[in-house]
Amino acid sequence: MSERRRFLLTEDQIPTTWFNVKPHLDVPPPAPLHPGTGQPIGPDDLAPLFPMGLILQEVTQEPTVDIPGDVLDVYKIWRPTPLVRAINLEKALDTPARIYYKYEGTSPVGSHKPNTAVPQAYYNKLEGRLRLTTETGAGQWGSSLAMACAHFGQTCDVWMVKVSYHQKPGRRVLMNSFGASVRPSPSDETEAGRKVLAMDPDSPGSLGIAISEAVEAAAKDPGASYSLGSVLDHVILHQTVVGQELEQQLAMAGVEPDILIGCVGGGSNFAGFAFPFIPLKKKSRPDLRLVAVEPAACPSITKGAYAYDFGDLVGLTPLLKMHTLGSQYVPPPVHAGGLRYHAMAPLVSAAVAEGLVEAQAYHQTEVFEAAMLFTKTEGILPAPESSHAVKGAVVEALRAKEEGRSKTIIFNLSGHGYFDTSSYEAYLSGKLEDYAYPEAEIAAAMAQLPQV
Amino acid sequence: MSERRRFLLTEDQIPTTWFNVKPHLDVPPPAPLHPGTGQPIGPDDLAPLFPMGLILQEVTQEPTVDIPGDVLDVYKIWRPTPLVRAINLEKALDTPARIYYKYEGTSPVGSHKPNTAVPQAYYNKLEGRLRLTTETGAGQWGSSLAMACAHFGQTCDVWMVKVSYHQKPGRRVLMNSFGASVRPSPSDETEAGRKVLAMDPDSPGSLGIAISEAVEAAAKDPGASYSLGSVLDHVILHQTVVGQELEQQLAMAGVEPDILIGCVGGGSNFAGFAFPFIPLKKKSRPDLRLVAVEPAACPSITKGAYAYDFGDLVGLTPLLKMHTLGSQYVPPPVHAGGLRYHAMAPLVSAAVAEGLVEAQAYHQTEVFEAAMLFTKTEGILPAPESSHAVKGAVVEALRAKEEGRSKTIIFNLSGHGYFDTSSYEAYLSGKLEDYAYPEAEIAAAMAQLPQV
Repeated sequence: MSERRRFLLTEDQIPTTWFNVKPHLDVPPPAPLHPGTGQPIGPDDLAPLFPMGLILQEVTQEPTVDIPGDVLDVYKIWRPTPLVRAINLEKALDTPARIYYKYEGTSPVGSHKPNTAVPQAYYNKLEGRLRLTTETGAGQWGSSLAMACAHFGQTCDVWMVKVSYHQKPGRRVLMNSFGASVRPSPSDETEAGRKVLAMDPDSPGSLGIAISEAVEAAAKDPGASYSLGSVLDHVILHQTVVGQELEQQLAMAGVEPDILIGCVGGGSNFAGFAFPFIPLKKKSRPDLRLVAVEPAACPSITKGAYAYDFGDLVGLTPLLKMHTLGSQYVPPPVHAGGLRYHAMAPLVSAAVAEGLVEAQAYHQTEVFEAAMLFTKTEGILPAPESSHAVKGAVVEALRAKEEGRSKTIIFNLSGHGYFDTSSYEAYLSGKLEDYAYPEAEIAAAMAQLPQV
Repeated sequence: MSERRRFLLTEDQIPTTWFNVKPHLDVPPPAPLHPGTGQPIGPDDLAPLFPMGLILQEVTQEPTVDIPGDVLDVYKIWRPTPLVRAINLEKALDTPARIYYKYEGTSPVGSHKPNTAVPQAYYNKLEGRLRLTTETGAGQWGSSLAMACAHFGQTCDVWMVKVSYHQKPGRRVLMNSFGASVRPSPSDETEAGRKVLAMDPDSPGSLGIAISEAVEAAAKDPGASYSLGSVLDHVILHQTVVGQELEQQLAMAGVEPDILIGCVGGGSNFAGFAFPFIPLKKKSRPDLRLVAVEPAACPSITKGAYAYDFGDLVGLTPLLKMHTLGSQYVPPPVHAGGLRYHAMAPLVSAAVAEGLVEAQAYHQTEVFEAAMLFTKTEGILPAPESSHAVKGAVVEALRAKEEGRSKTIIFNLSGHGYFDTSSYEAYLSGKLEDYAYPEAEIAAAMAQLPQV
């Protein structure tokens, strides 16, 4: 009998509660501040944008939150997701390390994003909010929310970062297939969009800009809510189904993790994957490494400041304490559109500040090179975002080889790249460029950090 | 506890033998005939194109064939695949029928094709054939063989039907990512391709043409084999892992099937899905229906003749007894490129002739309409080919509603449509056209059937 390759759970092993990391942090993120007054905000301040069901999850200190049955029913369309041992990748790297990946690409839209899209649509539906507005980068998030809205019968309006809108028409068509409306951001439908277009008609857009547009559209419509695919505490809460499944699968595989790796843009896939292991790390495995991998073109953890900043470009959102490059920073159009965000989730930032999470940054060509190796050996074309985690795993596996030590490396393959073939074509034809570390732009944006 | 939605097998439940339907047919397909002499051919006649390991599987009468461990190891990258109850689709149709789908889209390239690509590459490798040539329609098959060749370290040369080559660049990039060479067919690299281009420089190509080119290229290279993604007996043999898994999953679900539905181009996904149930049908369930769904633009079973014909346009292949529209027939460029084949697998044709399999034909707009309903309710965008099976299931579910009878309908969702968004965009923007039944073209092609 050959070595076991896949570790599959049954439907009844899907977690029935979400894991809340807050009680496990020595210094939880400080309260968000009102963008106008600079004073700490309460649930009521968020009511215009979010339903109370999600707001309460945003602020809860409870160690767990029950997952509603109606949400579990939709999770069952694709969950539990497989844990796979990357045996062929190990052989190709000739490493003593054991490499596993948790594969979230089996979801209907091919990424981890539906883990939070479904409950967000559900809680809005409960409170009669039948229109959701959102931003999307590569389109992973937008297609997830579009799927969730189709399920619960809600309207979905998406502002898609312009560079991805044109690079990845497939994602737009998928959103349309679910009945969502999609427009490129910056758009002329909002004041925020018009303001950006006035400054730069050719703006490639960014998540920060698209968020401003979606927030503005929701704030102007009492029947609408804004929906965010990352960054916020309740989004990370929802994503913890990933790490909780992983705990069961590692027990099934009979292995102890040494290094957990995920890519970070806003931080939700990494946090959902790694946070459930923080109690273990603090209790008995201080050597357990939680590694966040970010693009060198948008290095919020490795190069940013840990400070209060806006979540969007225009300054409509509350001020959040997080690792940030400055909300005015517009990252270069790297192909990992989902990672082009100027800041990092407050919970991930707090975990970094506490020394629980470390970060690495890589350029896109070395990331795509790792992705091609993974594709040829394991057969799955990873999303450019997820490829950052692949690169991180390859680096750690080669280090283990160098040190002659067997390590157990697990990374989160947060999505597949079937919608990103234009990016791979650019790489394979040698057209993919790296961007020098944008020092000047970042310094300029940092200089504009709000004073609080 | 809500109703069970997914039925998942464990790794050790992957079948360890392939199922051979031949011993169960009253009248197995008659022997293939030599294209030149018209005499029955033996294994040696096929040796220039195929390794002996596959030739012996092509002719075996044994009820089962063992699956090599090295092949099982690769199957484990994605098998077993899920059986899913389409609860939301049932609700949307308000039908008393229970609808399930076997989902093959979880494979690395998103379809059932790797089930045969992997063993084909493996048996060629065993006999030192390190270059494989093949044709591909939508690219599902080409990307599967490219993946298999990457795994076993073989060279892969693909002739891709020109209309799909341009409609679906994503598939080409995926093949390139696996290291395969891809060119549009008809090409000027072969006599067959040059002959077609001379007649029609704007030929959209067809599987029949692409097969001629790939066969010619392999025949001219002693170190090469030709590899076919459907039609032949050994291909169907390999695909029976699908139906054998389904048997276990239906037992797990505690349901008896009433109707099994699959789309048919060459016939391999349908056959692999449905043939393992033929013994049950003949023994105790004569009412069990096996339904093959084909495009109205290429209706080989519903409108073709059951006669000896060539498998390709130019006449390089052996003559096979099958349902055919005539090897000279070039189907209109419907978006289900994988179904644009003039004939049907001899084994499927024999099962039709024996009354074990029935067929239905639908136009592409009604097929895409069913696909959109499936996408909105079940969350998965089906491949245009697989959408024919979705349409068949919807039709049967509505009939059950009309008759007020609860039926258990299972269809094979042979692949996802993530690479086919250009087709869905055409549909959503109202640009998708149906083709009138091409009576004249088919009559002309039928008139040229070889006399044997």
